[in-house]
Amino acid sequence: MPEVILYVAASVDGYIARPDGSVDWLETLPEPEAKSEPEPAGGQVEADDYGYGEFIAGVGVVLMGRVTYEQILSFGVAYPYPGTAGYVFSRNRAGEQDDNVRFVAGDDIGGLVARLKAEQDKNLWLVGGGQLVREFLRLDLIDRIELFILPIILGEGIPLFPPATPQRDLTLTDCRAYATGMAQLTYRRAPAQGSSGVV
Amino acid sequence: MPEVILYVAASVDGYIARPDGSVDWLETLPEPEAKSEPEPAGGQVEADDYGYGEFIAGVGVVLMGRVTYEQILSFGVAYPYPGTAGYVFSRNRAGEQDDNVRFVAGDDIGGLVARLKAEQDKNLWLVGGGQLVREFLRLDLIDRIELFILPIILGEGIPLFPPATPQRDLTLTDCRAYATGMAQLTYRRAPAQGSSGVV
Repeated sequence: MPEVILYVAASVDGYIARPDGSVDWLETLPEPEAKSEPEPAGGQVEADDYGYGEFIAGVGVVLMGRVTYEQILSFGVAYPYPGTAGYVFSRNRAGEQDDNVRFVAGDDIGGLVARLKAEQDKNLWLVGGGQLVREFLRLDLIDRIELFILPIILGEGIPLFPPATPQRDLTLTDCRAYATGMAQLTYRRAPAQGSSGVV
Repeated sequence: MPEVILYVAASVDGYIARPDGSVDWLETLPEPEAKSEPEPAGGQVEADDYGYGEFIAGVGVVLMGRVTYEQILSFGVAYPYPGTAGYVFSRNRAGEQDDNVRFVAGDDIGGLVARLKAEQDKNLWLVGGGQLVREFLRLDLIDRIELFILPIILGEGIPLFPPATPQRDLTLTDCRAYATGMAQLTYRRAPAQGSSGVV
C-alpha cells in the first residue's frame, strides 16, 4: 500500500531553510561512512547515504509547493527526481505541465492522493514546503514522517510546521543517530483513539 | 566539572508550551515501563523515569526565567527542586529571595555561571524558558542539551528557541527512542573549529 511520506531535513529548532530560502547549512554535514565500517558503539548507524537511495527507489510520485519547485530548478543541476510523476501545487499554473511535473490547483488534494495511491504502487514523497505540509497535516494525509535533524540551531528561518498547523498526535517508530551528527526520527499516525506511542 | 544542562521537553515542532502556557500535552505520555522489562526490539530503551531521577540527583543549581518560576509555583504542588540552589532572572525582583530561590538581574550571567561552577561540583540545570535559553545560547553557556521530543505536532505555542536565537553548531552524542514514543536527543557544543559531528 503506497504511503504519503514527509521526508525532510530540518534544524534542531525546526527550520527547513534560512529566511532567504538558502539551504547552505544542509551541505555542512559530510556523507556518512561507507556501509563496510563496523557499527560504532552507542548504537549509531552508518549508512552511505542516510538511506536516501533506498527511499527514492521506492518513490513513484513527488508532491511539492510552487516555491519549493522553483528553488529546485534554481539549483542549476539536473532535475533530481527523474522517473517519478511530479505534481506542483500552484493555482496560477494549474493545468500546465513542463518536462518534470504537472501543475495542479490543489482544490481536492485528498482526491488526488487517493487516485495516485490507487493507480500506482510506489510511495508518494511530500517534498515540501511548510505550507503544503500544513495542508497535508490538516487533511490528515501524511502516513509517515522521516525527520532528519541536523545538529544545528539556526535561530531563524522558514519553519517546517508554520503557524496554524493543526495539532497532530504521532507514533514514534524509530530514532537513529548517524556518526555525522544527523538524527533521524520516524513517525507514523497515532492509533485511531488518539493516544501517542510507539508501534 | 559541572555542566550547564538544558534539559527540556518539546513538541516535534519545537514548542515548550501552548500559546497560553499550558503544558497539558506533556502529561499525555505514560510513564515508561519499569527497568526490569527486557529491552524491546529496535533498540528502544526502557527507563522508569526517562532518566530524570539520575539527572536531578546530579543537579546542584537550577536556573530559570521569572515566568517559568511563576508557572512552577502555580502548579500548586510542592516545589519540585528542593536541595538545589535556585536562581530566577528578574530585573524587577533582583536582590530578593524566597524559600526556594534568589532573584538576580542577569546583568552578568557569565560571571554567575562561572562562580556557581567554581563553588560547587554539581550540574546547573537551565530549566527555561525560551528567552533565557536564547540568552544562554548567545553567551555560549550551554554545555549540554537533553532534548526530549514528544510525539506530537502542537501547531502553535511558545518556542523553545525564540526569534533572534543565534546560530549554534552542535554535536549529537545520543539519540534514544522510548517505547512511549518519546525521543531523546543529547547534544554538546560543536568542536572549536565549528564543524558539526558526533563525539
